[in-house]
Amino acid sequence: MEEIIEKIASGEIKFHRISDFTEGDKTKAVEIRRKAIEKITGIDLSAIKPKTGTGIKKNEITENMIGYCELPLGIAGPIEVSGEFARGNFIIPCSTTEKGLIASLNRGCSAIKESSNRGVSVFIERDGITRAPVFEVQGGIKESRKFIDWVAKNFQKIKEQADRGSNYCRMQSIKPFTIGNKIFLRCEFTTGDAMGMNMVTFGCEKAGKFICRNTGAKLTALSGNVCADKKPAWINSILGRGATVLANAVILRKIVKTKLKTTPEKIVEVNWNKNFLGAALAGLSGFNAHAANSASAIFIATGQDLAHTVEASSAITFAEITDKGNLYISVKMPSLLVGTVGGGAEFETQKKCLEILGVAGTGNPPGTNRKKFAEIVAAVVLAGELSLLGAIANNDLAKAHLKARRNEL
Amino acid sequence: MEEIIEKIASGEIKFHRISDFTEGDKTKAVEIRRKAIEKITGIDLSAIKPKTGTGIKKNEITENMIGYCELPLGIAGPIEVSGEFARGNFIIPCSTTEKGLIASLNRGCSAIKESSNRGVSVFIERDGITRAPVFEVQGGIKESRKFIDWVAKNFQKIKEQADRGSNYCRMQSIKPFTIGNKIFLRCEFTTGDAMGMNMVTFGCEKAGKFICRNTGAKLTALSGNVCADKKPAWINSILGRGATVLANAVILRKIVKTKLKTTPEKIVEVNWNKNFLGAALAGLSGFNAHAANSASAIFIATGQDLAHTVEASSAITFAEITDKGNLYISVKMPSLLVGTVGGGAEFETQKKCLEILGVAGTGNPPGTNRKKFAEIVAAVVLAGELSLLGAIANNDLAKAHLKARRNEL
Amino acid sequence: MEEIIEKIASGEIKFHRISDFTEGDKTKAVEIRRKAIEKITGIDLSAIKPKTGTGIKKNEITENMIGYCELPLGIAGPIEVSGEFARGNFIIPCSTTEKGLIASLNRGCSAIKESSNRGVSVFIERDGITRAPVFEVQGGIKESRKFIDWVAKNFQKIKEQADRGSNYCRMQSIKPFTIGNKIFLRCEFTTGDAMGMNMVTFGCEKAGKFICRNTGAKLTALSGNVCADKKPAWINSILGRGATVLANAVILRKIVKTKLKTTPEKIVEVNWNKNFLGAALAGLSGFNAHAANSASAIFIATGQDLAHTVEASSAITFAEITDKGNLYISVKMPSLLVGTVGGGAEFETQKKCLEILGVAGTGNPPGTNRKKFAEIVAAVVLAGELSLLGAIANNDLAKAHLKARRNEL
Amino acid sequence: MEEIIEKIASGEIKFHRISDFTEGDKTKAVEIRRKAIEKITGIDLSAIKPKTGTGIKKNEITENMIGYCELPLGIAGPIEVSGEFARGNFIIPCSTTEKGLIASLNRGCSAIKESSNRGVSVFIERDGITRAPVFEVQGGIKESRKFIDWVAKNFQKIKEQADRGSNYCRMQSIKPFTIGNKIFLRCEFTTGDAMGMNMVTFGCEKAGKFICRNTGAKLTALSGNVCADKKPAWINSILGRGATVLANAVILRKIVKTKLKTTPEKIVEVNWNKNFLGAALAGLSGFNAHAANSASAIFIATGQDLAHTVEASSAITFAEITDKGNLYISVKMPSLLVGTVGGGAEFETQKKCLEILGVAGTGNPPGTNRKKFAEIVAAVVLAGELSLLGAIANNDLAKAHLKARRNEL
Repeated sequence: MEEIIEKIASGEIKFHRISDFTEGDKTKAVEIRRKAIEKITGIDLSAIKPKTGTGIKKNEITENMIGYCELPLGIAGPIEVSGEFARGNFIIPCSTTEKGLIASLNRGCSAIKESSNRGVSVFIERDGITRAPVFEVQGGIKESRKFIDWVAKNFQKIKEQADRGSNYCRMQSIKPFTIGNKIFLRCEFTTGDAMGMNMVTFGCEKAGKFICRNTGAKLTALSGNVCADKKPAWINSILGRGATVLANAVILRKIVKTKLKTTPEKIVEVNWNKNFLGAALAGLSGFNAHAANSASAIFIATGQDLAHTVEASSAITFAEITDKGNLYISVKMPSLLVGTVGGGAEFETQKKCLEILGVAGTGNPPGTNRKKFAEIVAAVVLAGELSLLGAIANNDLAKAHLKARRNEL
Repeated sequence: MEEIIEKIASGEIKFHRISDFTEGDKTKAVEIRRKAIEKITGIDLSAIKPKTGTGIKKNEITENMIGYCELPLGIAGPIEVSGEFARGNFIIPCSTTEKGLIASLNRGCSAIKESSNRGVSVFIERDGITRAPVFEVQGGIKESRKFIDWVAKNFQKIKEQADRGSNYCRMQSIKPFTIGNKIFLRCEFTTGDAMGMNMVTFGCEKAGKFICRNTGAKLTALSGNVCADKKPAWINSILGRGATVLANAVILRKIVKTKLKTTPEKIVEVNWNKNFLGAALAGLSGFNAHAANSASAIFIATGQDLAHTVEASSAITFAEITDKGNLYISVKMPSLLVGTVGGGAEFETQKKCLEILGVAGTGNPPGTNRKKFAEIVAAVVLAGELSLLGAIANNDLAKAHLKARRNEL
Repeated sequence: MEEIIEKIASGEIKFHRISDFTEGDKTKAVEIRRKAIEKITGIDLSAIKPKTGTGIKKNEITENMIGYCELPLGIAGPIEVSGEFARGNFIIPCSTTEKGLIASLNRGCSAIKESSNRGVSVFIERDGITRAPVFEVQGGIKESRKFIDWVAKNFQKIKEQADRGSNYCRMQSIKPFTIGNKIFLRCEFTTGDAMGMNMVTFGCEKAGKFICRNTGAKLTALSGNVCADKKPAWINSILGRGATVLANAVILRKIVKTKLKTTPEKIVEVNWNKNFLGAALAGLSGFNAHAANSASAIFIATGQDLAHTVEASSAITFAEITDKGNLYISVKMPSLLVGTVGGGAEFETQKKCLEILGVAGTGNPPGTNRKKFAEIVAAVVLAGELSLLGAIANNDLAKAHLKARRNEL
Repeated sequence: MEEIIEKIASGEIKFHRISDFTEGDKTKAVEIRRKAIEKITGIDLSAIKPKTGTGIKKNEITENMIGYCELPLGIAGPIEVSGEFARGNFIIPCSTTEKGLIASLNRGCSAIKESSNRGVSVFIERDGITRAPVFEVQGGIKESRKFIDWVAKNFQKIKEQADRGSNYCRMQSIKPFTIGNKIFLRCEFTTGDAMGMNMVTFGCEKAGKFICRNTGAKLTALSGNVCADKKPAWINSILGRGATVLANAVILRKIVKTKLKTTPEKIVEVNWNKNFLGAALAGLSGFNAHAANSASAIFIATGQDLAHTVEASSAITFAEITDKGNLYISVKMPSLLVGTVGGGAEFETQKKCLEILGVAGTGNPPGTNRKKFAEIVAAVVLAGELSLLGAIANNDLAKAHLKARRNEL
C-alpha cells in the first residue's frame, strides 16, 4: 500500500486510478486515497470519516471518494399541509450551515399551525421536466421550418424513441425555439418519482438521433440551455419546469401579533417594498425573501441536487390583508425540481429523511411521492417567507441572526 | 425520558423546548428528539447518526438537531491556479449527490494541467458584500433627495456606526436607489475572511438606526432585496457582489483532442449555441454550462451557504480559438460569495476541507484566505465548464451520465 | 372668436371644450386653439401647419389638435423579399429624425440585392395579439384552480363573448398565470389586418364580464401587464406576441467586401461581441444592433403605434460564416406589432406609404396584408442589422454619423 | 427629367444618386424621386407633400427624401411642474396616432392641477449619456487587467481626446466590464443640451484610437451594447443613462373621485396588480402602465429619436395611500434620453413645439434646457400613468378607447 501511496503522491498514479490497484475494492481505494492526500498535504484527515459503523454504501460511492461530509440535521415543523398529494402534518428534516434558519422555519410553521387547522393549502399547477437539444439544419429558416413541421408531424415516433430507455420517462410535448438555422427543441417529460434530468437526457439523445437520421439535421448540443437547468431563466418562470406549485395560508391577526410580534399590515408593506419594489430596482427574477434558503435546507437533508436551489430562488411571494383583517400569504414556485428515487434520494441518511416525510421511493401510482414532496417543500418555503417577512417587519432580522449565533437555540 | 418523549409526541412539549428538560445538555436533547420522532413516525432513525466518534461538536449544533446528514466527499484535481492569492496546485474537495460531477471536474482539471504549467489564471476584479436596507421618508422625492444628500455627507459617521460591531466589518460605500419616498441604500462592506452576511446585517442595523435618528426617516426593512441575497439579480451581475472573479486558460488543441475527444472549434460552437443563443431565446441571466453544479459541490464540502449557489449560477463562459489554433476559455463569476471563517466553515469536516485547500481560518492579512478560496473556486468552475462543453461537443453528455450511473468510476 | 380665445387664455374655457363653441366644427376649433396658444405663449405657430391643401382629414383629428407635425420622409430599398406573403421588390418608406439611418438601411438592402436574387427569406412562425385581464377570486389558490378549470371548460362560450364586437377579432386561446388568489388570463386573438389592441381590449372586456358573472370573480384590471404591451417583456420573447417573424439572407463575401468594406469574419465577430457578450454583461433583453431604429422609421411612415418600437427592440440577430465562406445573417423578431387598417394606418400620408408597400387596407383574405407587412419589416430590420454591423466591423460607425450630419447624402 | 426618371425606374440610376443629376438641388431631387416612384408603383403620391409653403428646409433633408410624413399634433395640459429646472405651467405638444392618448394625458394633468398648486414635483437624480466601445487585448485576463489599470491611470488623457471634437462633449467617467480578453468601456459623458449619441460616438472613437495606440489593444467595436442604446437593458435601469428622473404628486381623494371616477385604494390595487405582480409573472423590465406611450407622443412632437421610446419604457410607477387618505403616485424614469438641440430638435415644427415648452435650443448654462425638458417629460409620464391607472381601476379602459375611436373628442 505504501508503494501505491508513494506513486500517487508523486503523480505517477492518478487519484481515480486507485481502484485499479485494489482489485475493485472501493472502500479500500478510499482509504488509500485519504492516506495519499495526508501525505501530499500533511493534513490529518481523521475528522473526515468513512460512514459511521455501516461503512461506505455501494450506491453512495462517488468518484475519488475520501469519506463523508457531515452536516448538522435538524427538524422543523410539524407543518400542516392541505394538498392534492400531501395531507396532514409533516415533520421537516433540514440540513443547513446557517444558524437560525431552522428556528425561523419552525416559527413560520408554528404561526401557520396556530392560525388554522387547514395549514398551508397547496397544489401543483403543472408538472414536467425539460431538456432542450439544439439542432442545425443545412440552409436557413425555410429549412428550419420544414424541420419543425417534420418534428410536429412525427411527435409520436419521436416520443417512442425518447421513452424507450425507461419505464418512467414519458415525453409529453416538444416546443421549438428557432433562430436562423438553429432549432432548440424544448422537450417536456414526466419521469415518475425521479427528478429525471438524467432520464430525459438519455431520452433526448435517442430522440435526437432519430430526428437527425430522418431529417439530415445536425445535433449541435444535447443541451442548449433552453432547458434551462441550474441557471436563472425566465422560460422556467413563464412555462414552468419541474413542478409549478402554488401555496397559500391565512395567518390570524392575533397570531401575527403573538408569534411574529408584528401586524399583517407591516408584513404586507415589507413584502411590497422588498419583494417587488426592491426587485424592480435591482433586476431580480426572484420575488421572494429567502426561498432558496428554505428549499436548500430540505434539499440537502433529502438528497436533492443542490444546484436546483437556483430554480427554487425564482419563487414569487405575495401578501395582502383579508377582509377580516388577517394576513393572506401566498407563494408560487414556478420551477421546483425534486425527486424521491434515484441519485441522492437513495443515500442512507437522505432516504431516511424522505421516509420521515412519508415520500421515500416510488409512489403509487408513480409520481405521487414526488408530487407530495413538492407540495410539502412549497408549504415549507411559505413558512420560511412568513417567518422572515415577520422578522423584517419587526426589525428583528439582525437580532434573529445574533441569537442564532450565540447558540441560544 | 419516556415521559418527555410522550409529551413531545402528543404535542405538549415542542421540539425546540426539549433542551429545557435536559438541563441544557444538547447532545441529550438530540437523543430525545430522535426518539420522539421515531415514536411519532414509526421510523427507525438509526441510519441518521450522531457524529462519528467525536460526538456532536458544540458549534455544529443546530436548532432541533437530530443528528448528521452524510454526503459522499470526493476530490477533484489537482488543479494548477495562477492567481493573486492562490498559486500552485490544489486538491479540490467536492461533495455532491450527482454521479459523474467529480469525474467531470477532474477531466477538466486534467486537460488544463496537461496544456500549460500556468494552469488557470485568475484574479479578483472587485470585492465586497452588500446589504440594502430600505427607508421611507415623510413626504416625497424632494425629501428623498435631502435624505440621500444627508447620507452622502455623513458617510464617515454612518460607517463608524456600521463598523462598530466587528473588527472585520468595514463599510466601503453606500449607493442609493430611490423610488418615490422609498430609498434603498445598497451598503457595501469588506468582511475579512467571512462571507459576512450576518456581520453586515448587524452593521446595517446600527447604521440604519443612526440614520433614522438623525433624519427622521423610517427603516421599513433591514433587507430590501437591492442587496440582493440568494435571488437571481442583474444588480449583482452588473455591480458585482462578494468577489467578482475572472478566470481563463488555454487548452492545447492536441489536449482537447486526446482528453476531451473533440476540437476547439466544436467547443466554441457549443458555447455560442448553448450559452448565448440558447440563453437569449430562453431569458437566462446566467451564461454558462453548469457553474452552479461545480460551485455547489465545493460549497457543500467547505461549509459555504448553499443558497449562494444562486449567485454562482450567474457566471458567463466565453470560448474562442487562439491565433495558434488552441482553445481559449474564460469564465466570469460576477458574484461569488464564500468564507473561510464563521458558519459552516467552522464545522469539523468542512474545516478540514478548507485545510486541504490551504485556506482554513483567518488569512494574513485578513481576507486573503477568502480571496484565495474565491480564486480557486473560479478556477474549478472553469474546469467544469471546459469538461461539460467538451462532453456536449463530443455528444457525450448522455454517455457520461450513463457511465456515472453504472458506478464505473 | 376673440372672446373665446380670451376665455381659453384665462383658463375659463378648457382646450378640449373649444369645439363646444364652434358648433362641432373641429377645423375651426383647431384654429382657435392655435390662436389661444399663441396668445398664452407669445409664440408664432405659423410653422405648424394645418395639413397642406387638403385641410385636416376628419379621421386624423386628434384631441386638442393644433395642426400637423411634419417629419421628413425618405425611401430605402428596393429590398427583395421571399416570404409567404411578401414576394418581390419593395420600396420602403421611412420617416426618421436620425440622419444616416435611411442611407444605412439602403446600404443593407443593396448588399442583399447584389448577393442573391432571393433577397431576404422570411416567414411568420406564429401570429396573434394578446391582452391579459387580471381577476381576483374569493378565497385562495383552491378557488383560483376552480376558476382556471371553469375558464378552460368554457372556452368556447368565453370566445363567443369576446368575438362579438368585431368581424375580425377571434379569440384563439387563454393561458392562465396564477399567483395566490389572482389569475391573469393571457388571451390571444387574431385580428385580421389590424394591429388589434383596441379590438382585443373590447373583446377582453366582454369576456371578462361574462367570466365574472359566471364565476363570481372580480375583474381587478382589464390589462394586467401579462399582455404585455409597450414594455420589455420576456413573456413576449418566449411566447411571442403580434407576429413572430424569422428572416435570413446570405451575403456574398465579395459583396461584404465591396459594399460593406469588411469581411464576413469581422461581422460575425462584431455580432458575437456586441449582441451577445455585451448583452450578457449588461442585462439586455434585445440581442441586436439597432432593430428599434429600423422598425421605428417604418412605423412612423406607415402610421403604426410608435410605442411598439419597444417590442421591436427585442429582436435577436445571429451571424455566421457559411460553408462557402459567405456571410449568413438571420434576425428573429419575437414580437412585431403592425397593422394595415385602423389607427394611423388610415391617415393620409401614412396610408400612401402602405400603398407603396402594397399592403394598405384589408387583405384578401383578411390578415394577409398585415402579415405581408410584418414580413417586409423583418426583412428591412435585417438589412439594418447587416449595415450597422458592417459599419462597426469597418470601424466606420463614427464616420457614417459624421457624413450624415454634414448632409453628404 | 423624363430621361432620368426612366433610368431610375429601370434601376440604372439609384435613388440616392439622383442629386448627382440635379446639380445638387435637393428639392428638385425630391421631385424627381417622387415621380420615379409614381412611375414604378403606379401610385399617385400627391398626398405626400413637400412642406407646406416654406418648402423643404435644408437641415430637414434626409436621404432619398420624397416629402413629409404628417402626424396630427395636439396639446395636453397645462401641467404644473415643480422641478429644479422646470417650474410653472406647461402646455405639452403631443403627436400620436393613438386616439384617446392626448385626452388621457389631459385628464391626468387636470387631476394633478386640481389637487395641488405644486403639481408634479420632479428632479434629476443623475445625468449623463454613455457609449461602450469593446476592446480586445492580446493574451487573457491578466492583460485585460493591465489594460483596465492603464485606462484608469490615464483617464485625464483619454478624456482630452474624447472631448476634443465638441464644446459640449465632456467625458465624466469610464466603467470597465470585462469578460476574458474583451473589455467593454462604458464611457459616460455630459453633452450640453444635445441628446448626444453622435457626439459621444465621435468622442469614443477618438478615445478608442488613443487607447489602442498606447496599449496595443484592438478596438473590436465602437459600440458594444454595454452602452446600451435602444434595447431594453438592466444596466440602464441600474446605473442610469441619459437623465434619471424622479417625479411624484399627491392627488386628493376627492379629485380621484370626481376626475378619475374611482378611489385611491383602487388605483393602488391596480398598480400593484398590474405593474408589479403582472410584471413579476411575465418577466417585464418596465414596471409601469404605459410610459412608452406618453413619452413617444412628446418625442414625436419635439423631434426626439423615437427609438429612445425603448428606454422610456423601463419606468417604474409606484402608488400608495397617504396618511390623509389621498393618493401618492410616483414615477422613476431611469433612462430618459432627450435633446433640445441637434437632430430632429432643429426641424421646423418640432422646434416650434420645443418653444411652446420653453426649452428650444441651447440653455443658459448649456444643458439646462435639456434637463428642464427631461423634467417636464417625466411629469407628463406621471400624468399618463395616473390617468390610465384610473381608467383601469374604474373598468373604463375599453370605454376610453371606444370613445376615442368614435371621435368624440
